[in-house]
Formats: sequence, C-alpha cells, structure tokens
Amino acid sequence: MNATNLSQFSAERERLRNLMLSYAGRDMKRLLTLDNAIYEEGALSNRTKELLALVASTVLRCEDCISYHLLACHKHGLTTAELMEAFTIAMLIGGSTTMPQLRRAIAAWDQLEH
Amino acid sequence: MNATNLSQFSAERERLRNLMLSYAGRDMKRLLTLDNAIYEEGALSNRTKELLALVASTVLRCEDCISYHLLACHKHGLTTAELMEAFTIAMLIGGSTTMPQLRRAIAAWDQLEH
Amino acid sequence: MNATNLSQFSAERERLRNLMLSYAGRDMKRLLTLDNAIYEEGALSNRTKELLALVASTVLRCEDCISYHLLACHKHGLTTAELMEAFTIAMLIGGSTTMPQLRRAIAAWDQLEH
Amino acid sequence: MNATNLSQFSAERERLRNLMLSYAGRDMKRLLTLDNAIYEEGALSNRTKELLALVASTVLRCEDCISYHLLACHKHGLTTAELMEAFTIAMLIGGSTTMPQLRRAIAAWDQLEH
Amino acid sequence: MNATNLSQFSAERERLRNLMLSYAGRDMKRLLTLDNAIYEEGALSNRTKELLALVASTVLRCEDCISYHLLACHKHGLTTAELMEAFTIAMLIGGSTTMPQLRRAIAAWDQLEH
Amino acid sequence: MNATNLSQFSAERERLRNLMLSYAGRDMKRLLTLDNAIYEEGALSNRTKELLALVASTVLRCEDCISYHLLACHKHGLTTAELMEAFTIAMLIGGSTTMPQLRRAIAAWDQLEH
Repeated sequence: MNATNLSQFSAERERLRNLMLSYAGRDMKRLLTLDNAIYEEGALSNRTKELLALVASTVLRCEDCISYHLLACHKHGLTTAELMEAFTIAMLIGGSTTMPQLRRAIAAWDQLEH
Repeated sequence: MNATNLSQFSAERERLRNLMLSYAGRDMKRLLTLDNAIYEEGALSNRTKELLALVASTVLRCEDCISYHLLACHKHGLTTAELMEAFTIAMLIGGSTTMPQLRRAIAAWDQLEH
Repeated sequence: MNATNLSQFSAERERLRNLMLSYAGRDMKRLLTLDNAIYEEGALSNRTKELLALVASTVLRCEDCISYHLLACHKHGLTTAELMEAFTIAMLIGGSTTMPQLRRAIAAWDQLEH
Repeated sequence: MNATNLSQFSAERERLRNLMLSYAGRDMKRLLTLDNAIYEEGALSNRTKELLALVASTVLRCEDCISYHLLACHKHGLTTAELMEAFTIAMLIGGSTTMPQLRRAIAAWDQLEH
Repeated sequence: MNATNLSQFSAERERLRNLMLSYAGRDMKRLLTLDNAIYEEGALSNRTKELLALVASTVLRCEDCISYHLLACHKHGLTTAELMEAFTIAMLIGGSTTMPQLRRAIAAWDQLEH
Repeated sequence: MNATNLSQFSAERERLRNLMLSYAGRDMKRLLTLDNAIYEEGALSNRTKELLALVASTVLRCEDCISYHLLACHKHGLTTAELMEAFTIAMLIGGSTTMPQLRRAIAAWDQLEH
C-alpha cells in the first residue's frame, strides 16, 4: 500500500468489480448495490460512515477493504489526528495482529498527505 | 441482552474486572489502563469513539463488547437513527453472521429507550 | 441446543427479527430480504444451499446460525450420513475450535431424529 | 488469481506440501492424509464436498484455499450459475469483507471458462 | 466459568463427545483421535502443549476450548504467574475483544486455586 | 516467506514501524512499547513466549506475525522437532485453513536451518 499502489489498486478493483457485475445474478447485484448505498449521507455523515468502515475493516484485517476506505476517508477530509485515534482504537480492540495492516495503511496515508 | 440484563452485565463485568486487576502483572495492568484511555475525548469525540468500538465489536461478534459499548453510546446520546445506520454498515461488512448479536442488541436498545 | 431448545430458539429468533424489522431503515430491510431470497431454489437446490450455509456457519462458529440452518436442513430431508460428512469437512477446515458447536449441533440433530 | 496464476499456484502448493511432508511428524502426516480423505465420494458427492469447501474457504477469506477448491470445482464440472449462487451465499453470510477474494476468484473462473 | 461450572462443563463435554463419537464416520473418528494424540509428551512437554492450546483458544475466543485447556494447565501444575504472562500475550495479540473470555477464565482459575 | 524474504521482511517491518511511531499519539506509543515488553523473560522464558506468539499468530493466520515470531524462535534456539509439534497443534486447532501459512513458514524455516 502506497499512493501509487493505491491508485493502481483502485483501477484494478474497478475492473474486477465490473467483471463481477457481468457474472452476478439478481441477488448478488442487489448486494453490490447495497454496498454503495449504505455509505450515503444520512443520520450519520459520509465521513463518519467511512471511518466506521475503516475501523471495521482493520479489526477484520481486510487489506483491500482498508485501502478502499482509507482513500474515501482522505477524500472526505479526515485529519491525521482523527485517523490515528481511530487506528489506536482498532489496534487495541483487534490486537497486535492488526499491526501489519496498520503499518502499511499509515505508510499509504503518509504518501497521500505529501 | 435487555435493559435488566445490561444492568446485571455491567455489575458482573465490574466485579470480574476487579478480580482480573488483582491478578494482573505490570503489563496487563497497562493494557487495562490503555483500554480506558483510548476512549477519552480527543480529535474524535467520545461519542464517535464509542460508535467506532461498537461497530468493531459487532463485526468481531463479541457480545459482551457490544453490550458495553451500546450502553456507552446510549449514555453519550446516540440517536436511534444513528445507531441503525451504524448497525447496517456492520451487518453489511460483517455479513449475516452478525445478525444474532444485532437482533439482541436492538432488543436491548429498545428497552433502554422505553 | 436440543429439540426443545431449537423450538424455543426459532420462536425467539422470529420475535427478535420482527423487532429488528420495526427498527430497520431502507437498507437494513433490503439486507434482511436478501437474507431470505438467496436460499430459494435456483441452479442449486434449497437443500444444497442450506447445507452450504450450515458449513459456513460452522467454520465461523456462529451457534445461532448453525441452529437455524440445521433445522432447515432437517426440513429439507438431509440424511444423517450427509450431515456427518459435511460436519467432518467443517471440522477439518475450521479446526478443533469448531468442536464445541459441533457437539451441541449433533446432540440437537439426535433429538430431531428421535 | 488467474488461469496462469492458478497453474503456478498448483505447482508451488505441491512443492511446499512435499517439503511440509518431509518435516512432518506422525500426527501432522495423519492430518495431511485426512485432508485428502474427507473429499472422497461418499454420502455426498465429490462435487458437493468441493463446493462446501469453497464456501467455507470464502467466508474464512483464505485465498489459497479458495484457489485450490475453485480448481477442484471446475474439474468436477460445476456450472457458472451454480458457482455464482454459492458465492452469493458466501458473500451474504461472510459480508462485504469477502468481496476482494470473490472478485479475484471470479476473474480466475472467467479465465478457466475461456 | 467457575470451579463448579468447570466440573459440570467437563461432565457435559464428555457426554456430548461420546454422542458425537457414536455418530462419527471413519474420518471424524480419526480427527477426534488426533485431537488427543497431539497433546502427548514429545519434544515439547504436555504442559507447554496445553499452554500453547490455551493461548490459541483465547485469541480465537473459544470459551469451551479455554475451559478445557485451563483445567489441563491446572492439572499439569502451571503457576499463576505463568498463566498471567501467557494471558497477557494472548490479550495483546488478540486484542481487547478477548477480555470477556479472559475475565471469566481468571475467575475460574481463582476458584481452582482456592 | 524464505530466508532472503525474511531478511527483507525484517528491514521493511522496521522501516514501517518507525514511520508508525512518528505518527503515533501517546496511547498508540504505549501499545507499541507494551508489544515489546510482554516478550521479556519472566515466569515464562523468552523462548516459550515467542512460541506462544507463533502459535497464536498461526491460528489467526497473520503471515507477517508468523514471520516475525518464527525468526525470534530461531534466534532463541527452538529445535525443528519442537517447532513441528507446535505447528501440529496450531493446525489441528485452527484447521486446514492455516495450511497455506504453515507451508510457507516451514519453507522459511528450512532455509534458516540450511
């Protein structure tokens, strides 16, 4: 994970998502639609929702999910201080087994900020 | 999980936490101290931090953790609409395997609100 | 988990599911609808789909999910020999950490068959 | 994961499995033997067993396990419609955190079919 | 989990294990046999093996598995200081999501020691 | 994972850990400090603690964590026979879903020993 990798990651994710959609039946299509809809502005802001998803992805140690929601958090103007507090919560709840993903996520954030 | 159970749960959790502290060595004590410190107001509010912990606990399907952070969210004035959006994100990310915990968490919330 | 418990479990699950629906927003309602739709007869039979869900629930060690799909498998006429082969696969893939759930699931099946 | 990768994956997996066997003691050897034996034709067909293993591997998000059982399912003549229904069940039960693996698995299947 | 509960737990586990054996086919029987064999004295002592299993069970948050291996560790003369250091490692690696199981395990140990 | 890779892995891990420390707030710094402190010699030896961490990392299928603790176990003079018994326990408890990581870990150990 770094800024270049994140850009390649986004392009590849998009390509594979389209391939998946071309194979998907009715119910999988509905799941993929929901997967976008739930992050729309509501009682909670986009920004809070993306942060919730980032922390959930971290404790589940899903590196692709972290990359995706990290980019979204950056786009929504999350500050570095907010990010690091969220990551501290994820690291304490999920344990040191989340550290490899967190180290790479922070390296990617470092490049997004520079 | 319901309002009565949540109250019993809190008392029992406190009792066992004190017993744990009486057995804990230096490093475990530090971990238990950190486990409180990270939820203090900072760049992110208490309320947002507790919501992050609630969603993380849900995707990890830790029922005691959910009970604990649900009570904290209630105390911090989280609205039902905010809670349900957070739970929808947790359910989509974590899958239907989170539903048993979510059903019981909503039943507990229902009693806290009435 | 036993035959009586499974019957109580089904009633309680239904009650909590209705409560959840009364709280659910648009997207959570859609997820709950999908959660029924995907088990309908299709290219794969109901029976195979329920067996897939039972094995998935076992490796994820979700006891409520196992109870639910075990009842569905029984209703669809799964044989004991088929069940035990599926459980052997789940136990080998998921490891001995699945054994507590499997022991209780087999005790429940034993009562359903008698 | 793609058709070329899957072929390389199989060769490398075989090489490492032989190395593991050369190090394995009595009990690990027995586990490795069981890991083949449980997929033999029985009350459930080979094909159903491999599909159960594929769904279990998906909800556990084990990419190597998915590659292995995807190839086995292809060899046993699983249809694309059957595969996609099984993946929809895995995605709903395991949540959107399974999507990265599923996107790559569908890309690999796409190449196996062409 | 407490000393009385642990005794009831052992009796019930034994009853269900026998029921499982009466249903088990050849391969599941072999798995259950292996599940005993791997804890026999070898290059590693019984005691170390049980401690490894206890820590593995804790990070996987399998409460029945923890009860079982906690009793075995007690039988093999593990000291309280050793136990607490092992639990600190499990808590740090597995995160605060292991705390509910650890609180109850320490309460059970407290009764075993008194 | 192999001997060359393990050396590159250690260097990259160190680089990213330093970057993480430069971003870390007070609480994350404390967690990172604890992550070293808990492996110090105590009632349990360094060697036993690293072996506990290796088995915990294996059942959690954290490949970076396995690499790190495998190197530490090698440094502390763990024998191949001890390692293989620990891995057998991890494989049985965690299931065949741990095999991909175990195959690569054994290949890395093979190079460390030659």
